Amino acid sequence: MSGSTAIIGSGLIGRAWAIAFARAGWSVRLWDPAAQAAAEAQGLVAALLEDLAANDMLRGQKVEEVLGRISTAPTLSQALDGVDWVQENAPEKLEVKRALWQEMEPLAPAEAVLASSTSAIVPSLFSEELASRARCLTVHPINPPYLVPAVELVPAPWTSSDTLKRAEEVMRAIGQAPIVMRKEIDGFVMNRLQGALLEEAFRLVADGICSAEDVDIGIRDGLALRWSFMGPFETIDLNAPAGVRDYAERYQGLYENLFASMQRRVDWTGPVMEEIETERRQRLPAEQLGDRQRWRDRRLMALLRHRSQAAEEVGE
Amino acid sequence: MSGSTAIIGSGLIGRAWAIAFARAGWSVRLWDPAAQAAAEAQGLVAALLEDLAANDMLRGQKVEEVLGRISTAPTLSQALDGVDWVQENAPEKLEVKRALWQEMEPLAPAEAVLASSTSAIVPSLFSEELASRARCLTVHPINPPYLVPAVELVPAPWTSSDTLKRAEEVMRAIGQAPIVMRKEIDGFVMNRLQGALLEEAFRLVADGICSAEDVDIGIRDGLALRWSFMGPFETIDLNAPAGVRDYAERYQGLYENLFASMQRRVDWTGPVMEEIETERRQRLPAEQLGDRQRWRDRRLMALLRHRSQAAEEVGE
Repeated sequence: MSGSTAIIGSGLIGRAWAIAFARAGWSVRLWDPAAQAAAEAQGLVAALLEDLAANDMLRGQKVEEVLGRISTAPTLSQALDGVDWVQENAPEKLEVKRALWQEMEPLAPAEAVLASSTSAIVPSLFSEELASRARCLTVHPINPPYLVPAVELVPAPWTSSDTLKRAEEVMRAIGQAPIVMRKEIDGFVMNRLQGALLEEAFRLVADGICSAEDVDIGIRDGLALRWSFMGPFETIDLNAPAGVRDYAERYQGLYENLFASMQRRVDWTGPVMEEIETERRQRLPAEQLGDRQRWRDRRLMALLRHRSQAAEEVGE
Repeated sequence: MSGSTAIIGSGLIGRAWAIAFARAGWSVRLWDPAAQAAAEAQGLVAALLEDLAANDMLRGQKVEEVLGRISTAPTLSQALDGVDWVQENAPEKLEVKRALWQEMEPLAPAEAVLASSTSAIVPSLFSEELASRARCLTVHPINPPYLVPAVELVPAPWTSSDTLKRAEEVMRAIGQAPIVMRKEIDGFVMNRLQGALLEEAFRLVADGICSAEDVDIGIRDGLALRWSFMGPFETIDLNAPAGVRDYAERYQGLYENLFASMQRRVDWTGPVMEEIETERRQRLPAEQLGDRQRWRDRRLMALLRHRSQAAEEVGE
C-alpha cells in the first residue's frame, strides 16, 4: 500500500516523518507556516537521506529516488489537496494545535486520516469541535520514526474504529510497529512506561542507593538486553516454567513488597540533579553532547541492522 | 586477575557462575549438599559449554580448556579450602541461607570474599551473626551471568569498603558489569526498576488502555532500543539540547502529571491475568515455551556479539 501524505510543520519531527513515508514509496508534500521553512527542510532531508543510505537504511533505494517523492507546497490548502494522510507536527501548544486543526480539517479530502504527532496532548483536546472528528487521532512516534519502529495510535472517544484500523494499516505499510491504544490517557503508553522507570531511577540516586551510571548498567547491561527483542511481558512469560501466570504467582509478592516505597517522587531538578549532572558531565563533557548524539544514532542504526539479520537467521 | 572460587550449590545459578568464572581463567570447585548433584552439574556444564562454543561465546577457548578448570569437591570444607571467592547459590529460604552461612564462614580462608547469589534477601539478614561479616555481601546476577553482564553488589551495613572494592575488581576481571550499591534495599536496583515498569504495564492492560503485546511493542520496538546500549540516564542526557538537567527542566512536568495515576497496583494474578495469559498463549502455545526459551538464548547471544562488534566499530 502506498499513497500521498501531507506533512504539516517541517521541523525535526515533520522531516523525520517525510523520510519515513517517502522511503516506503509514499509521495510527500511538506508545508510549514514559516516562509522558506519547507524548502529548507528539503535540503535537511537530503542530508539525512545521504546518511541513511551510507548506513544501508533506505531499503535498497537511492537517495534521489526517495528525495524525488518529497515536494513542498506553497499553501496549506495545496499541501492537503488530494492526500490520503495528514501528519501534523505543530509546536506542543494546545491553542496552536486547535487553531491549526480548525483550519486544516475542512481543507483535507473527506477520506484522509488526520494525525497529530503530539507527544503530550490527548487527541480529544484538539479534535472535539471538528465536524469530521471521527477521522482524527494522535499518531505519536519516538523520534526519529525512520529509525525507531514503535508509534502510538491514540484515539479520542469519537475516533472511529475504521480510522484506527486504517491508521494501523498505513503505519504497518510504511514499516512502523503500531501500538493501537483503545482509549486516550495522559502520557500514552511509552511515556508512562518510561516515566515509571525514571521515577524509580531518580529515587534510587536521590536515596543514595547507587549512582546514575549504576542504573544505566542495570538497564543497558541487564534488563534491556532481552527487552530489546522481546518486551517485558514476553520476558516474564519465558522466566517461569509455566509462563506468565506462573511468573506472577511466584514473584508478585516480591514486587508487591516494593510498592509502598515507590509512592513518593523526588524533584528531578532538586538536589539529586546536582549529583546526576556532575556524574554525567564527568563521563561526557557538555561540548561532546553533539558527538555523542551522532554516536547514538550510528549505534541505533547498527542495532537495527543486527535485529533484521537476527530475525532472519535466528527467528523473530 | 584470576584465582579460585567455590561454587556452593550446583543448581541453575551455581552452574552458570561456574561457567562465568572458569571462562575467565579461574579455577572452580563445585559443591552441593545433595549427593551426586555436583558431579551431575559438571555434565550439564559441559553441554552448556558446547553450546557457548558453537555461538562463539568462550572468548576463543576450547570447551575442554574451560571445563578443565571446573572440579567437584566431596565436602564443603574441601570446596572452600584455599579459595579467593565463595559464591553461594542455596534455595531462597532465609533459614537455609543462615544455617549454610554459619557453617561456611568459619571454613572459608580468612582472605576470601563470601558472596550470595540471592535475588531477594538483603545481605544483613544472613550475615549479621557472623564473626567475619565485613567480608560478606550479595552478588546477584541476572541469569545467566555468562551471557548477561550486569551483577548487583549489595553491601550489608557492615560490609567493608575493601570487600566491596575487591568484589568489584573480581567481577570486572571475569567480564561482568558490576552495579556497586552503597547500601542494601529490598529488590536491589534491577528488580526495583523492572518492578516499577511492570506495575505500569499491568495497570495499562488492566485499565483497558492497550494489550500486553502493545506494551511489548513500546519497549521492544521503542524505548529499549536505545536503553540496550545507553541506559535511561544517558538516553535522557542526549534527549535535550543541554543535557540531563535541561531534559528534567523541560519534561518533569509531563511525568509529574502522570504520577498520581500510578499510585495503585492491580493484582497481577487477578482478572488482568486472564487477558494477558489468553493473549500470550495465542501468540505462543504453552507447548512451545521451551523452544521459545532456546530462541531467546540464541537471540541474546547474537545481540551480545553485535554489541561487541558495534562497540569496536562505532565506539562504546
